[in-house]
Amino acid sequence: ANKIVNAVFCAQKEAKKLAKDDPRRVVHSFKVGLAIILVSLLYYFDDPIYDGFGVSAMWAVMTVVVIFEFSVGATLGKGVNRGIASLLGGALGVGAHRLASFTGNKVEPIFLGLSVFLMAAVSSFLRFHPLLKARYDYGLMIFILTVSLICVSGYRDDEVLDIAYIRLFTVLIGGAASVFICVVIRPVWAGEDLHNLTAANIEKLAIFFQGTTSFLSSLQHNLEFFKSFDESNEEKKASLDVYKSVLNSKANEESLANSAKWEPRHGKFRYRQPWDQYLKVGAATRECAYRIEALSGYLINSEMQMPAEIREKIQEPCMKISKECSCALVELSAAIKKMTQATRADLHVSKAKAVSKNLKSLLKTGLSPDTDLVDIIPAATVASLLLEIVSCTAQIADSV
Amino acid sequence: ANKIVNAVFCAQKEAKKLAKDDPRRVVHSFKVGLAIILVSLLYYFDDPIYDGFGVSAMWAVMTVVVIFEFSVGATLGKGVNRGIASLLGGALGVGAHRLASFTGNKVEPIFLGLSVFLMAAVSSFLRFHPLLKARYDYGLMIFILTVSLICVSGYRDDEVLDIAYIRLFTVLIGGAASVFICVVIRPVWAGEDLHNLTAANIEKLAIFFQGTTSFLSSLQHNLEFFKSFDESNEEKKASLDVYKSVLNSKANEESLANSAKWEPRHGKFRYRQPWDQYLKVGAATRECAYRIEALSGYLINSEMQMPAEIREKIQEPCMKISKECSCALVELSAAIKKMTQATRADLHVSKAKAVSKNLKSLLKTGLSPDTDLVDIIPAATVASLLLEIVSCTAQIADSV
Repeated sequence: ANKIVNAVFCAQKEAKKLAKDDPRRVVHSFKVGLAIILVSLLYYFDDPIYDGFGVSAMWAVMTVVVIFEFSVGATLGKGVNRGIASLLGGALGVGAHRLASFTGNKVEPIFLGLSVFLMAAVSSFLRFHPLLKARYDYGLMIFILTVSLICVSGYRDDEVLDIAYIRLFTVLIGGAASVFICVVIRPVWAGEDLHNLTAANIEKLAIFFQGTTSFLSSLQHNLEFFKSFDESNEEKKASLDVYKSVLNSKANEESLANSAKWEPRHGKFRYRQPWDQYLKVGAATRECAYRIEALSGYLINSEMQMPAEIREKIQEPCMKISKECSCALVELSAAIKKMTQATRADLHVSKAKAVSKNLKSLLKTGLSPDTDLVDIIPAATVASLLLEIVSCTAQIADSV
Repeated sequence: ANKIVNAVFCAQKEAKKLAKDDPRRVVHSFKVGLAIILVSLLYYFDDPIYDGFGVSAMWAVMTVVVIFEFSVGATLGKGVNRGIASLLGGALGVGAHRLASFTGNKVEPIFLGLSVFLMAAVSSFLRFHPLLKARYDYGLMIFILTVSLICVSGYRDDEVLDIAYIRLFTVLIGGAASVFICVVIRPVWAGEDLHNLTAANIEKLAIFFQGTTSFLSSLQHNLEFFKSFDESNEEKKASLDVYKSVLNSKANEESLANSAKWEPRHGKFRYRQPWDQYLKVGAATRECAYRIEALSGYLINSEMQMPAEIREKIQEPCMKISKECSCALVELSAAIKKMTQATRADLHVSKAKAVSKNLKSLLKTGLSPDTDLVDIIPAATVASLLLEIVSCTAQIADSV
């Protein structure tokens, strides 16, 4: 009994965390319940309608359950997919059925079976096409479903056209109800999520550089290069790990962009938003994150210590570079959030570039040859790599 | 008319490419068609069964269309999800219905509505949990569907139990037919795909190092460091780009592993395969790919040229390192394919480590201080970073 209490307690805690991470989830759950109830009213109260629909009202309920997604764009996309696919599938199904009725009584089932087989096989094959898969996968599935249901059940009774018509109508009711509830009650816009995600990802990189800066500045007081890092500065290490989620953000960004393309213009996004631009910014951000991953792996894994002499020389420009990078990224992120030009970001980028030029010439001329160059230079080079990336990001951000 | 011919021709070409990329796609399409036909036989030939099932036979068709996936694991997973969810949803739906019938005639619809609302909201919320989402997302959706259909339609006629029973039975028939066809005709095992993908990804990294090696060796003859690369060696550049697909392989690997977990042991995979191990190997491979991305970005973007003197000194060890890395990765990939221990890979790794040690000491002592160190060292350091990764990969590969 104690175990069960424990498990319940655990589940409760996790549920609270889920809700706290994104309170819109709770709202979404209520919206789903509400939409289902709304559509079931078709059954409950309206007897004349019930006479018209019969069991078909369940298609409306089914539509709501299946297409109701978290964001408006995804719901709309699935709804449109389902609507069009039901229409096309219904039309083709009815057509096949009519054609079949011209053939003999014995040929009819074979003809119907063959046409269902053919259409199902072709649409299944089309689902492998990457472009169709991204936007119309669901629609193709519903197309197969509608065609086979109509062809197959149509053989039994002759009211095929009625069935097709009622099915389409109930699907439309269900879809309309879902979209309505989804939009009216606290709508979640995929476009906005994508917008925020892009800005947040850039900010995460900025946090990494802030962490690096404070990490480097702490070195001025400690002689132990990496020990201070490993032991006392656990929270700083955590701030260095924030960027990790950026590395695998591609799938998430793409699905959001796909949903966003279905959304009508609204609110902040008055003109048609260039969603592909977001994907480009996201790709540049990831490129930058890959470099950071290499750099941070280098910082954490390397066991070497460098002589104080070099460290002092290197530290200053490295700190400046990472500070400027951080500033530029913060500016970029803010610019994306407010959808303005990121002019000050360019300033920071050019500053960082100047510093890294200094650093390069310092490395060329200023150091004695008998030192552990291996330890220091990668940080500098990766930083200069980052500058390329940052300037490329700046370019893209300009177009927002 | 010309345009239409053109479009058709284009579509034909793309279809051919889709089929050529993976011939199993065509087989899959035929399998889907076949499964649908098989299940529709429930309608066509067996009149006594038809009397029993009525319109419910369409649930079987629907089940086939919805759960038939490319790989056995995914189909099985969806089938089990749908079966269990239908059972649970049916049971709870019937239960709620019975409870409601004890209440008054006026309270009954309100009670049913509330319970549907509650169950739908709770399950929608549960779908946000990452673990449940990965494996039971579909099941939760079907659960909501079944509960609401039974509660809502149950209010109309009193044969709720019959409906629930028939629905469950037809879903089971559809599921069994799908799984049967999926397994019997040229099965596609997600586990095998994951296995091959892991090996192929490691091989892609090896190809990158081969490209690097031949690129470096071509430098011995050309004085122009990067021009030769940009202009004539386009095909070599392409070989350097092969690894890019590894960077974003995470989502794909995870979905394959999820499907693979549903699959029974079979063929080569006699014992319970450690799918999570594959994910770890995949993660290490990606880590390595991030480093490669940084390295190759450096090679391609950098405009600097280095003096011949240093190049000669550096070239030899760099070539050796990338050759050994390539060998080690090829061995690892082969070991995973054959599921043997990768003993020779360890050998290559230790060789590469030795060479990189030499390179390090060479950099410390052997070079004159007035040279463009910045140009060379990153390659060396990234290579040594790679060694860490490679040795880590070797460790994991041992456990296969």
